[in-house]
Amino acid sequence: MTRPTPLSGFPEWLPGQQIVEQRFVERLRSVFELHGFAPVETRAVEPLDQLLRKGETSKEVYVLRRLQATPEDTSDEQLGLHFDLTVPFARYVLEHAGKLQFPFRRYQIQKVWRGESPQAGRYREFRQADIDIVDRDEVGLHYDYELPLVAAEALAGLPIPPVVIHTSNRKLAQGFYRGLGVEDPAAVLRIVDKLDKIGPDKVVAALVAEGLSDGQAKACLSLAEVVTPDASFVERVAALGVSDPLLDEGLAELATVLSAASELAPGLLVADLSIARGLDYYTGTVYEGKMRGFEKSGAVCAGGRYDNLASTGTDRFPGVGISIGVSRILGLLFGSGALSASRPVPTCVLVALPDEARRRECDRIAVALRARGIPVEVAPTAAKYGKQIRYADRRGIPFVWFPGEEAGAGEVKDIRSGDQAPADPATWVPPAEDLHPTLG
Amino acid sequence: MTRPTPLSGFPEWLPGQQIVEQRFVERLRSVFELHGFAPVETRAVEPLDQLLRKGETSKEVYVLRRLQATPEDTSDEQLGLHFDLTVPFARYVLEHAGKLQFPFRRYQIQKVWRGESPQAGRYREFRQADIDIVDRDEVGLHYDYELPLVAAEALAGLPIPPVVIHTSNRKLAQGFYRGLGVEDPAAVLRIVDKLDKIGPDKVVAALVAEGLSDGQAKACLSLAEVVTPDASFVERVAALGVSDPLLDEGLAELATVLSAASELAPGLLVADLSIARGLDYYTGTVYEGKMRGFEKSGAVCAGGRYDNLASTGTDRFPGVGISIGVSRILGLLFGSGALSASRPVPTCVLVALPDEARRRECDRIAVALRARGIPVEVAPTAAKYGKQIRYADRRGIPFVWFPGEEAGAGEVKDIRSGDQAPADPATWVPPAEDLHPTLG
Repeated sequence: MTRPTPLSGFPEWLPGQQIVEQRFVERLRSVFELHGFAPVETRAVEPLDQLLRKGETSKEVYVLRRLQATPEDTSDEQLGLHFDLTVPFARYVLEHAGKLQFPFRRYQIQKVWRGESPQAGRYREFRQADIDIVDRDEVGLHYDYELPLVAAEALAGLPIPPVVIHTSNRKLAQGFYRGLGVEDPAAVLRIVDKLDKIGPDKVVAALVAEGLSDGQAKACLSLAEVVTPDASFVERVAALGVSDPLLDEGLAELATVLSAASELAPGLLVADLSIARGLDYYTGTVYEGKMRGFEKSGAVCAGGRYDNLASTGTDRFPGVGISIGVSRILGLLFGSGALSASRPVPTCVLVALPDEARRRECDRIAVALRARGIPVEVAPTAAKYGKQIRYADRRGIPFVWFPGEEAGAGEVKDIRSGDQAPADPATWVPPAEDLHPTLG
Repeated sequence: MTRPTPLSGFPEWLPGQQIVEQRFVERLRSVFELHGFAPVETRAVEPLDQLLRKGETSKEVYVLRRLQATPEDTSDEQLGLHFDLTVPFARYVLEHAGKLQFPFRRYQIQKVWRGESPQAGRYREFRQADIDIVDRDEVGLHYDYELPLVAAEALAGLPIPPVVIHTSNRKLAQGFYRGLGVEDPAAVLRIVDKLDKIGPDKVVAALVAEGLSDGQAKACLSLAEVVTPDASFVERVAALGVSDPLLDEGLAELATVLSAASELAPGLLVADLSIARGLDYYTGTVYEGKMRGFEKSGAVCAGGRYDNLASTGTDRFPGVGISIGVSRILGLLFGSGALSASRPVPTCVLVALPDEARRRECDRIAVALRARGIPVEVAPTAAKYGKQIRYADRRGIPFVWFPGEEAGAGEVKDIRSGDQAPADPATWVPPAEDLHPTLG
């Protein structure tokens, strides 16, 4: 075969980058578990009608067909790859409700797929890390600040630029538009959602084209321009002189969220009334996290409250969730050279091989070192020692172990400093910072 | 919507089972890294022509199409979901060869998909954990025993029945058939591969139907019945009186593998000359791991040496690999009730909420406990304490924390024993065995 070429929109990392992603995911997982979130994985596919039930992403679905399926073969439902982890989770909750305890806290870290035309930064396959809490009938408002704070805590422990979670409330915006006398609040939301991309002038123009008066359009823009680090947005909105009961409800909910967040973790959340979120299943609080220095690249985490996503005729499971765009964050930071691992292999020690006949002895040195948690490889061939040291050097392996003439004896060399000293495989330990690759 | 129902062939675990899978994967990952394998993930899709290039699984591929693709939309190559991790890895090696160091050791733990008719135990979506070593032009024979021993070591640390890796060599069987005067050794391999499923009589009948004489068919069966814990299979084969240079090469290679394995880790590998492996990219050593008590359920890990899978006109990267069927092992053990987690949530402590107004205080207790790595939730509502204790009990959360009247004071109750004692959130630690869910 000829040398294969990359597929646009399907990112693949080199091993050093994969080590970074692995550490990244471990950090998220560990913080999620510290907060009592249990792991869930859903299958990659959902029936197509489920995927098309909500939101505006229907055009982005990949549909599956069995290569050998015949026209008469109608046994398969139409299946599509999931495009997020919220819709599958809602289905999972309904399917397994009888075996779950509510409120149910879960995290889910998986790939999702969107069959869109790839552009810069737009992936067709990417990893998300979601946390959600769902409950029967009603889910407490305190989760509206708990969830983004857990996500922010998880991200804050990583060597990445700070992420601030911009927060708003659907009711606030919808009530405001209704109070203004706008006919189709959803259409306005969709236009205002583009503020970051198209700028204020084009937003006003699009709103006027939608049928709003100049005054209405400018009021919508003024609302979207309110950004405060605490609950002071309430006065800013009051000054705009619009009143509506849904607006009041949204203001009160968002004030509760911002007050708690600014007390518990100052600076991680801001109220930003431009935030709308495209998917239409959100019904209250909504989030978009932006990473410092990459604000123009869009949200690195996002979510909100959905009161109606998971329901049958008899059961309803409202929820609050937030999703971290793992691949998006990594793609941005790898792209700008801002994040890497100290070496592209886990190996800490290469055991040099003096002679192919002595491989078993070298294997035993490796076993002794591994028994104390030290990642070790034995050299692939009994090449000249210089070549074996280059093998380690090219991979960033910090130590080379030279077996002695007698079993048990030996020396270990730090190939960065050149220091070499006698060592016993049963007791030697590397400096803690060299044991595993580190991120930076 | 109505209550959703499961999709046949797409297993989904409950959270307690997902915790088991998570631990399982962490164990594999940690052993793989101890042996210097670096992580790789490939995209879920490959160009269809790549997937159909080798082997007999072409009929099992899921092909993708964008839902909104138009007939004129020919920009997309035909893409299919990968059905294993070896074919994508071979493509990855060729694509990124210039940026990798050889020999290249990688592990890869991902879902794969096969669009087959689901039967008992046959999954359409499942997780595999693969390790492979590839090198330029040639890859050392010592990897043929290193790889299965790493897989066996990883599995041996899990609370599952022992896995024995049955090992053979394609050259041995093919040389034997050629020495017998059989015309199509590949066809014979495919029939003998079914020995476990259809039994010796049907194998002989199928071989005769293929054109073999009765004597040839019985000799093929005799070869397949050779199983030894060490290199003594060599004499057993010699006694069958067939000679061929390729047979001798296969015998020598397999003897090297078995001698080393029986010295380094007695009992983990056996020579089993019935092993053939269906996929036709293997060229030498082949493996099939069987789990005690589940031998009839087929291989729980499998692999082999492939000298020709990854090559362009100018470059060739032979390799050796083995793949652990994570979903298959879990499915078998969950199905027989033989493996579970001690609780279905990570939470070790539930902080009881005396009054909604005191939530912030309870949040701070949780923060203090989490700072020392203890997984904690705060109760969802200020229900009566009896109800809050039931919340913990239903989830298997071992401890409930009752905030005192004064900030900082409080008591912690082990709800299994009923023991309750004053405790300080800044210093209290649970018994080590209660900190995280355990497997059993």
